Amino acid sequence: MISKATTKFIKSLQLKKYRKLERLFVVEGEKSVLEALNSDFKVRQVLGTERFLKGHESLLCRVEHAEVTGKVLASLGSFVTNKAALAIVEMKENRFKEFPPGYSLALDGINDPGNLGTIIRIADWYGIKQVVASRETADVYNPKVIAATKGSFSRVNIYYTSLENFLPTVDLPIYGAFMTGENVHNIQFQPSGILLMGSEANGISGQVEQNVSHKITIPKYGQAESLNVAMATAVLCDNITRKVN
Amino acid sequence: MISKATTKFIKSLQLKKYRKLERLFVVEGEKSVLEALNSDFKVRQVLGTERFLKGHESLLCRVEHAEVTGKVLASLGSFVTNKAALAIVEMKENRFKEFPPGYSLALDGINDPGNLGTIIRIADWYGIKQVVASRETADVYNPKVIAATKGSFSRVNIYYTSLENFLPTVDLPIYGAFMTGENVHNIQFQPSGILLMGSEANGISGQVEQNVSHKITIPKYGQAESLNVAMATAVLCDNITRKVN
Repeated sequence: MISKATTKFIKSLQLKKYRKLERLFVVEGEKSVLEALNSDFKVRQVLGTERFLKGHESLLCRVEHAEVTGKVLASLGSFVTNKAALAIVEMKENRFKEFPPGYSLALDGINDPGNLGTIIRIADWYGIKQVVASRETADVYNPKVIAATKGSFSRVNIYYTSLENFLPTVDLPIYGAFMTGENVHNIQFQPSGILLMGSEANGISGQVEQNVSHKITIPKYGQAESLNVAMATAVLCDNITRKVN
Repeated sequence: MISKATTKFIKSLQLKKYRKLERLFVVEGEKSVLEALNSDFKVRQVLGTERFLKGHESLLCRVEHAEVTGKVLASLGSFVTNKAALAIVEMKENRFKEFPPGYSLALDGINDPGNLGTIIRIADWYGIKQVVASRETADVYNPKVIAATKGSFSRVNIYYTSLENFLPTVDLPIYGAFMTGENVHNIQFQPSGILLMGSEANGISGQVEQNVSHKITIPKYGQAESLNVAMATAVLCDNITRKVN
């Protein structure tokens, strides 16, 4: 059993205001909770079903945990059903580490939590460890973002900053995705660089665009007006890795 | 104003049972309604705001239409807000035409309406006009699918059938997406063929797999367990078109 106060506290973390205040966020579902426990994130507490807790005793021995039913888990979080676990996890500091060799991502105002989460999952697939995001980009600790990353939030670092101020300090080629640019199939990508993606509605903003060294585009063979930004990120990462690796 | 009976009728089309019975479906939002009006779909009726109706008089002159408020539009459909229009459109017959030159898609049990809609949008971007889907695949006339296609439903034909029975009759190479297969970056694709994608949870099913002539895979450079099926479709279509076109 958990107290009413704990219930209220966990539910409050659905809101950015309280996440920011407490420096905590919620991770839901078996796979994501296990990824959090196996990562360098500090897990404050795990609530799990009997089956989940018994199945992962060694992982949980140093973490505060309590048994609850699946019904309680679903009532505490954003998932419609959750038959495994929910974790309260400490946020990391918003800190830029340095660009690792290879490619990193820059995101200029990705508003949709599902898109941001999917982009983080794609980054993780393609071995990208650093994402720099404008302050208008969705909050990575939003439960919808965490869910859409399918556990990849634990391996990809996001640093929020002003791209207008940050990008001019970067000593790497910056490839920006535009509707009109050089055909990505013909580009010889540099061994290291930044892939910059713009917002769903407006693309890359004017001030940020000034830092782009190469405007690139995905060739279109049919009639759809556009590709979703997460799709475009996947296709561009695939084009970059095929040449670089 | 529209009658209570009309309201009830339109709302009933949210359910597959009634769509099948009436052979009608609903299209929502400015862009999608305009795409429907400009396509070979037969639009039975358009409900639109004053602004929408005035802005598209010539397109609407031969279509039954009525003026309603945005609030009424939202109450009739699945969108949270709709300030433009909603159309009642006739379904097409479930008919296979023939594979056009180039590539077509086969979908083995894509259950999620958002994924199916996004895949149709990707197909339209890459010039793919024919999709063959197993009967377990989500209904293309589901409002969530139509919304996710962003208008591309009007240009891509979906034929539902038993893939087990249909694929053996196909005289084209069938490239199936698997977690272990030949690296797609190294493949010389044939000028025409079928790209076969499996379901979100189970991939390509055993009986369908027997028809695959080439097992292909997207190389992974990081640690994410998988890519979402729509992302994977986008990346594979990009790889196919870069070689074929």
